[in-house]
Amino acid sequence: MTTPGDREPVRHLFPLRWNDNDQYGHMNNTVYYEAMDTAVNAWMIREAGLEPAGEVIGLCAASRCRFLEAASFPEELEVDIAVERLGRTSLTWDLAILRRGAPDRIGPLALGSFTHVFVDRAARRPVPIPESVRAAVSARLTVATGS
Amino acid sequence: MTTPGDREPVRHLFPLRWNDNDQYGHMNNTVYYEAMDTAVNAWMIREAGLEPAGEVIGLCAASRCRFLEAASFPEELEVDIAVERLGRTSLTWDLAILRRGAPDRIGPLALGSFTHVFVDRAARRPVPIPESVRAAVSARLTVATGS
Amino acid sequence: MTTPGDREPVRHLFPLRWNDNDQYGHMNNTVYYEAMDTAVNAWMIREAGLEPAGEVIGLCAASRCRFLEAASFPEELEVDIAVERLGRTSLTWDLAILRRGAPDRIGPLALGSFTHVFVDRAARRPVPIPESVRAAVSARLTVATGS
Amino acid sequence: MTTPGDREPVRHLFPLRWNDNDQYGHMNNTVYYEAMDTAVNAWMIREAGLEPAGEVIGLCAASRCRFLEAASFPEELEVDIAVERLGRTSLTWDLAILRRGAPDRIGPLALGSFTHVFVDRAARRPVPIPESVRAAVSARLTVATGS
Repeated sequence: MTTPGDREPVRHLFPLRWNDNDQYGHMNNTVYYEAMDTAVNAWMIREAGLEPAGEVIGLCAASRCRFLEAASFPEELEVDIAVERLGRTSLTWDLAILRRGAPDRIGPLALGSFTHVFVDRAARRPVPIPESVRAAVSARLTVATGS
Repeated sequence: MTTPGDREPVRHLFPLRWNDNDQYGHMNNTVYYEAMDTAVNAWMIREAGLEPAGEVIGLCAASRCRFLEAASFPEELEVDIAVERLGRTSLTWDLAILRRGAPDRIGPLALGSFTHVFVDRAARRPVPIPESVRAAVSARLTVATGS
Repeated sequence: MTTPGDREPVRHLFPLRWNDNDQYGHMNNTVYYEAMDTAVNAWMIREAGLEPAGEVIGLCAASRCRFLEAASFPEELEVDIAVERLGRTSLTWDLAILRRGAPDRIGPLALGSFTHVFVDRAARRPVPIPESVRAAVSARLTVATGS
Repeated sequence: MTTPGDREPVRHLFPLRWNDNDQYGHMNNTVYYEAMDTAVNAWMIREAGLEPAGEVIGLCAASRCRFLEAASFPEELEVDIAVERLGRTSLTWDLAILRRGAPDRIGPLALGSFTHVFVDRAARRPVPIPESVRAAVSARLTVATGS
């Protein structure tokens, strides 16, 4: 188990798009989930060897978000990536949506959680988290609680 | 307090779109939130006098979803609408995503929750839930627990 | 060659979603393309034997749209489907976006065109339009000009 | 009138999102239009004084795109921004979708055109292009043909 602050923050840049703003003139709530889904998949593909066309894929089993501050196009956001729980077949991400360049998680726009269950592509039954993902998570991300 | 079954189910038709399917060949997790956001806003506009261009609007303060079964374009889904909590300034929806025509909430694709806080448009500070919304919710929806 | 009026209109129901409205309070221009993409793919899957997981798939090679009237959530739209050109490996759809129940193409919200090139999934090289698609188009849709 | 090459290229960074990939495993065709809409609005807001909440807004009257090469999440794209026609009340953008860092428009993923008509917010009737937009376009963008 590690504690927050042991690692360099891991961030994913998420520039807003024109059509992310809904008729209330701010980023729609669903876009925060796009940001979370995008950030963790990009990180797994780039840093942890996930192959979206491969035999083991990660499906979303649950997610949640608290929306604290509004944002609006053309702002650029960042997703701060940490891990809430690294299990045997599932991984729960602990995510914060921040304005670009925010030094830490103080004053986040939103706080979210996103659980991936790893499954084999054909049968879609749970399988152990790929070793490359487990190793990269353990080495580079802040993990709140071990398995 | 009412219990499930006291009311006719209230459903919102939600046909999938081609681009709702992500590269895993099923409806992306963010689309379930589009379905929930769409269902409750359509219901409030059509049945409860909500005016999106008016002085009081409903902003999403929190949401969550558990994903239980996959769906895929060109399926047509329905959102079953009930209320988890009717407060003074906020309303928490209790939602189920179902295949079109499913007779009840048995075997849902997903179960979600979505909290609207009502605010005045300019200052975006909480205000009481509009009377028309409160009255329509009380009259027509299943409410798990009163305020 | 057939002329408009030879066939029953073929329509695809397209209800708007909350987040289709952009900050100008109307359906964003990109959503008209979602409507077109959705309508023709749903029709090909349901009526013409297209298998999105099969060996021959249709990729968009070009599209265009003229936007004539605004629409706004929670309106329900329809896409009127006809064919501009049925070639050997490509099919250009002639599409109109209408309000639900509009009796014909008078006063459309938008007029669009969308060209599918059929390719084999692996190499993504053009192949002849599947016979089931060609037959269904010829039998059921208004085709402006033959190949 | 200026010719290509007279100006520094103007580019808008457009990172792909997980849900931009459709079930064919590549960026859906509608996302190219999101990229175009986003790029020109961001540029007008940041460089040309457009106020989306102001009295004069730009609505999309027509658009078109030719799709030449596929892209796939997590690639990062850029939109190269030029102007095809600067009229009295309308502006037609000449746009290319490129991979990030592509040195020029050789080998684009897509070539698009997008016409904004400027209108007053309330009546939505055409009005002259705001002076700040006209001046910024003339000063900084490649314009194929004058009005």
